[in-house]
Amino acid sequence: MARTDPLIIFTPSGKRGRFPVGTPILTAARQLGVDLDSVCGGRGICSKCQVAPSYGDFPKHGVTVTRTALSDWNAVEARYDRVRGLARGRRLGCQATIRGDAVIDVPPESQVHRQVVRKAALDRPMTMAPATRLVLAEVAVPDMHSPSGDLERLCAALRTQWGIDHARADPAVLCKLQPALRKGGWQVSVALHTPAGAEVPQILDVWPGLHQGGLYGLAVDLGSTTIAAHLCDLASGEVRASSGLMNPQIRFGEDLMSRVSYAMMTPGGAAEMTAAVREALNTLVAGIADAAGISPALIFELTIVCNPVMHHLLLGIDPVELGQAPFALAVSGAITLPAQTLDLTAGSPQAQTYILPCIAGHVGADAAAVALSERPDQSEDLVMIVDVGTNAEILLGNTQGVLACSSPTGPAFEGAQISAGQRAAPGAIERVKIDPETLEPRFRVVGCALWSDEPGFAAATAATGVTGICGSGIIEALAEMRMAGVLDASGLIGGPEATGTRRCEPEGRTFAYVLHDGSAGGGPRISVTQGDVRAIQLAKSALYAGARLLMDQLGVDKVDRIVLAGAFGAHISPKHAMVLGMIPDAPLDKVTSAGNAAGHGARIALCNRTARAEIEGIVSRIHKVETAVAPGFQAHFINASAIPHATDPFPELARVVPLPQVAHGAGGAGAGKGGRRRRR
Amino acid sequence: MARTDPLIIFTPSGKRGRFPVGTPILTAARQLGVDLDSVCGGRGICSKCQVAPSYGDFPKHGVTVTRTALSDWNAVEARYDRVRGLARGRRLGCQATIRGDAVIDVPPESQVHRQVVRKAALDRPMTMAPATRLVLAEVAVPDMHSPSGDLERLCAALRTQWGIDHARADPAVLCKLQPALRKGGWQVSVALHTPAGAEVPQILDVWPGLHQGGLYGLAVDLGSTTIAAHLCDLASGEVRASSGLMNPQIRFGEDLMSRVSYAMMTPGGAAEMTAAVREALNTLVAGIADAAGISPALIFELTIVCNPVMHHLLLGIDPVELGQAPFALAVSGAITLPAQTLDLTAGSPQAQTYILPCIAGHVGADAAAVALSERPDQSEDLVMIVDVGTNAEILLGNTQGVLACSSPTGPAFEGAQISAGQRAAPGAIERVKIDPETLEPRFRVVGCALWSDEPGFAAATAATGVTGICGSGIIEALAEMRMAGVLDASGLIGGPEATGTRRCEPEGRTFAYVLHDGSAGGGPRISVTQGDVRAIQLAKSALYAGARLLMDQLGVDKVDRIVLAGAFGAHISPKHAMVLGMIPDAPLDKVTSAGNAAGHGARIALCNRTARAEIEGIVSRIHKVETAVAPGFQAHFINASAIPHATDPFPELARVVPLPQVAHGAGGAGAGKGGRRRRR
Repeated sequence: MARTDPLIIFTPSGKRGRFPVGTPILTAARQLGVDLDSVCGGRGICSKCQVAPSYGDFPKHGVTVTRTALSDWNAVEARYDRVRGLARGRRLGCQATIRGDAVIDVPPESQVHRQVVRKAALDRPMTMAPATRLVLAEVAVPDMHSPSGDLERLCAALRTQWGIDHARADPAVLCKLQPALRKGGWQVSVALHTPAGAEVPQILDVWPGLHQGGLYGLAVDLGSTTIAAHLCDLASGEVRASSGLMNPQIRFGEDLMSRVSYAMMTPGGAAEMTAAVREALNTLVAGIADAAGISPALIFELTIVCNPVMHHLLLGIDPVELGQAPFALAVSGAITLPAQTLDLTAGSPQAQTYILPCIAGHVGADAAAVALSERPDQSEDLVMIVDVGTNAEILLGNTQGVLACSSPTGPAFEGAQISAGQRAAPGAIERVKIDPETLEPRFRVVGCALWSDEPGFAAATAATGVTGICGSGIIEALAEMRMAGVLDASGLIGGPEATGTRRCEPEGRTFAYVLHDGSAGGGPRISVTQGDVRAIQLAKSALYAGARLLMDQLGVDKVDRIVLAGAFGAHISPKHAMVLGMIPDAPLDKVTSAGNAAGHGARIALCNRTARAEIEGIVSRIHKVETAVAPGFQAHFINASAIPHATDPFPELARVVPLPQVAHGAGGAGAGKGGRRRRR
Repeated sequence: MARTDPLIIFTPSGKRGRFPVGTPILTAARQLGVDLDSVCGGRGICSKCQVAPSYGDFPKHGVTVTRTALSDWNAVEARYDRVRGLARGRRLGCQATIRGDAVIDVPPESQVHRQVVRKAALDRPMTMAPATRLVLAEVAVPDMHSPSGDLERLCAALRTQWGIDHARADPAVLCKLQPALRKGGWQVSVALHTPAGAEVPQILDVWPGLHQGGLYGLAVDLGSTTIAAHLCDLASGEVRASSGLMNPQIRFGEDLMSRVSYAMMTPGGAAEMTAAVREALNTLVAGIADAAGISPALIFELTIVCNPVMHHLLLGIDPVELGQAPFALAVSGAITLPAQTLDLTAGSPQAQTYILPCIAGHVGADAAAVALSERPDQSEDLVMIVDVGTNAEILLGNTQGVLACSSPTGPAFEGAQISAGQRAAPGAIERVKIDPETLEPRFRVVGCALWSDEPGFAAATAATGVTGICGSGIIEALAEMRMAGVLDASGLIGGPEATGTRRCEPEGRTFAYVLHDGSAGGGPRISVTQGDVRAIQLAKSALYAGARLLMDQLGVDKVDRIVLAGAFGAHISPKHAMVLGMIPDAPLDKVTSAGNAAGHGARIALCNRTARAEIEGIVSRIHKVETAVAPGFQAHFINASAIPHATDPFPELARVVPLPQVAHGAGGAGAGKGGRRRRR
């Protein structure tokens, strides 16, 4: 770069350098390390390297750019504009060359590592650096006097044109390479997989000329109950379709430990469950490709997050060791392997799978994905992240370090073990309010925006009816019951005498609170029973005890903020969760929902291969606390059983009045008339 | 190492160093880089590290070794001796520690890279350094307070105990790891595959404790006609069984080009041939394991050599490009890939395949294997190596450089296109002598050591009869006919008038020489026809022209020595080959047979992973000459048609008399009575 050469400044990066007249902008960008995309390697085919030159005075940069700063519009650009259209003011970076000082803006869509904001799922930017990408290579024609294989000449092209060394290809790809090269006039598009680790780059597919069909990947959140996936465009990061289905393993046991038992008790049981989940994933791949209108053969990557039991069952490993101390994983590190090894054959035959690392025998790759999504290790304030499921994974930490544990909450939060419990499907009660004066409830059901006391509710829910109560509904119901005084601090439901409402009615030797009576119309009668309260008490005690255990380890008694993760977490009302004592107290505005953070983490790993190395590093530094043997856990668990909020923790809530102690029998103690206003 | 520490000298390497008192011999050996084996990593289990201490004065080394130079026989050695026996004078290198100056001999069987002499196949030493080897690892027990996977703890053990980094394992191995670790008391044997390239080490199998069953590999010579394999013990290099079967692709075409045609003409034809050869390899694996009395699951590696068409068909690649200029290979480099990718499932499910590199579209991995076996690049004198088959591969070179070409000899040398031709099976004429006086032939057949004129021949061959003539037989017959004057320099067979023997009889418009008439006993009449001579002339011209072409390239008109390779090469009489003009003239004692050099090359690659890098390097430096387009080839081919040896090139041979020119019709010219002595 001579001092008299033109000065080129790229925005927004500000990178600058001097280049000889005639240097293509793309060449200058590459030499300066400017993030300018190109699939065709500068052949004017792909248009990925579009740039926007600026003209005029740039005092900040100390240059004046004239209209002759770049070469004239050339034949390639003219042809491209004619065929596909080039936006006004844009040039192809590989065609336009430098004549004088220039300021060149690289628009976001021309950046390789562009940040993509995903509206559909989470409103967060995602940096694109996928492990699988498309490159166009111009391959030398074969010469019988200097014989070499088509693959070797392709690899030489990848080396000189893309700086990619040692690429390899399976025979199945080699079969396609020879015809593709000849059909494409020795130009081929290559789907190239470059994992983060020590593995060599792998050619997953080839097409003659420039492949226009895109490359896709699937981010999979493989839960005990449901399997959810996002189909992402690996170039843009765009979510093209989302889909979910029930985990077919449910027929072998609702919760994880019953599946481990099934594996232990049934010869071939683990293999049966492995086959079931792999088949379900194949169904999911085929279905989501169909929904997006793409060929499933264009799905080249799957990133998978799951709990340790699902992790082992997916890999075909007997999970029996996870059912007993010391809960040893067969493998804890991240796993990259061909999808075919897992019988996942519905996508490209060369598709690669990346399974995030597990943190411990009870804290799986799903928790790792939450950490990748929420990055507690980058938080300045002390954050607690709670992912509520059949097991609750809890992360606590900040830049100083991160702790993790898993609490055995059981399936009550998911509506199981609850008398009128059901999954969050249309017709399920998901929101509850109880009038503190009248003790009358009102509610909303999934799939309807109206409250039950609003006009038109009956008509709006006629199709589904009111069918049961889901996890978030039971939590709100209990918290509202407590705040209305229907429930005492020990978790006992008061009888009609004590509470003064006929909503509280005897059920066996205890009482139940009737939320909805649809029996007149042939529907169910939905009430919260004493058994329901006990089930939720157990679950919330486990969750709270795990959270406290981590706080003890750090020697703190409060956290700066709480993030509720998981599909369930997204629907929990933070206020009600705190009233119930599910989570430690925190300022209400510091409790947020992260939505499906595990799924989001899977998507980050899909779209950014450096994120894979990051999460592997984070996981290796997370300190794991084993609740099963921690001495403090049992004490916290027992103490957490109460629902202690005798006073309203939040000003906007109605008063909470202590409920007179009710004995463990119907009408027992008969007390509690004093201090309670009767209603109706 | 302080100056006062004891001095340890290892023989035969001569490596020496000072070590503190108490250092185990194995530790000292490792620090000095002495080649001392150990599978158990120094736990006194495997006995691979046996050494033989020497005592007395060693003026050459400048030390005196006393009887107290080493620690006393310890409990581990005593137990080992009791259970399995320790030869007198031997110590376990991991148990015996240093007390004073010592001279320690490492016996050949304790060397990792020991040289093994293979009697069965080729009498040449082979250095053992297999890509797959057995190591014993002592794995940390799981700790729930510091959770990590069983694989991660095994990898940590491999790192600290063996210096092996980044080992990986497929889920199918992980399934076995958990029970193996627990059954083996946290000691496991690992079959570890460490390829030469950039790939990471892979755990192919695990066993509880010390695995005693051995690891095996298969060296496969995949020919167009036959598939031959040696089953080798990967620790000792010993050949445990050898086996061969017909290539089932023969039903799609006898020669390679007819198989390429089949692939071009028949939809799915290439896939059909791929399936056939893979199935045959599976049959071979199962059969050879059975013959050796081992479990096929202990076969962890296959090295495969083959010509380019077989190479592509094995890989499942349509060979159509190999049938037309520029004869472009889909892939030319060496290939390491899981055997399962090639549907080779009869061995271990984790077995790895190494396919040697191809040199060019006509010069395959079999020629590369010949180069690895014969190492022309290490030869001081100029060597020509000829591997005769349906195509003849020719290598010519020395330390200055190596050339290669392939000549389309066609199948005549293999007995095809010959009127009485057959494969070299019992009953086939393989040796021929013609008495120069009487012009009467005598011969030997495969499977019988007697000549046809020796007493007892008829009885000895009664079971098979004399059924035809094989490749080496037809070459000897033609050379003998030429030397006896039955054949002229142009390749014409003289009639009975010209030759004076009734062995020469009319056949159509030309003559045939009757070698054997078994018609009286119901057997065939075996004669050499004019058509047979023409077929062999074409084949030998192609071979000779290829050889001359390479010599032209080097600017030489003679070579120092000639090596005949291939099963066929092993049976050719060098003298007769030279009389016939198959190969350039060379001193008779400089023409040797290398036997199945391609198969030997496959075995070297199986037993020594550094040899893989070597052959990849050699192949990249070989200069390939394409006979199909070389201008000199056609000229040489036409000139080589003659059988010019009018005088005996070798003193011990009988005189060769020029045959009077016989016209191209029966009895034509009628000449030739003068100058020929009549017989009978």
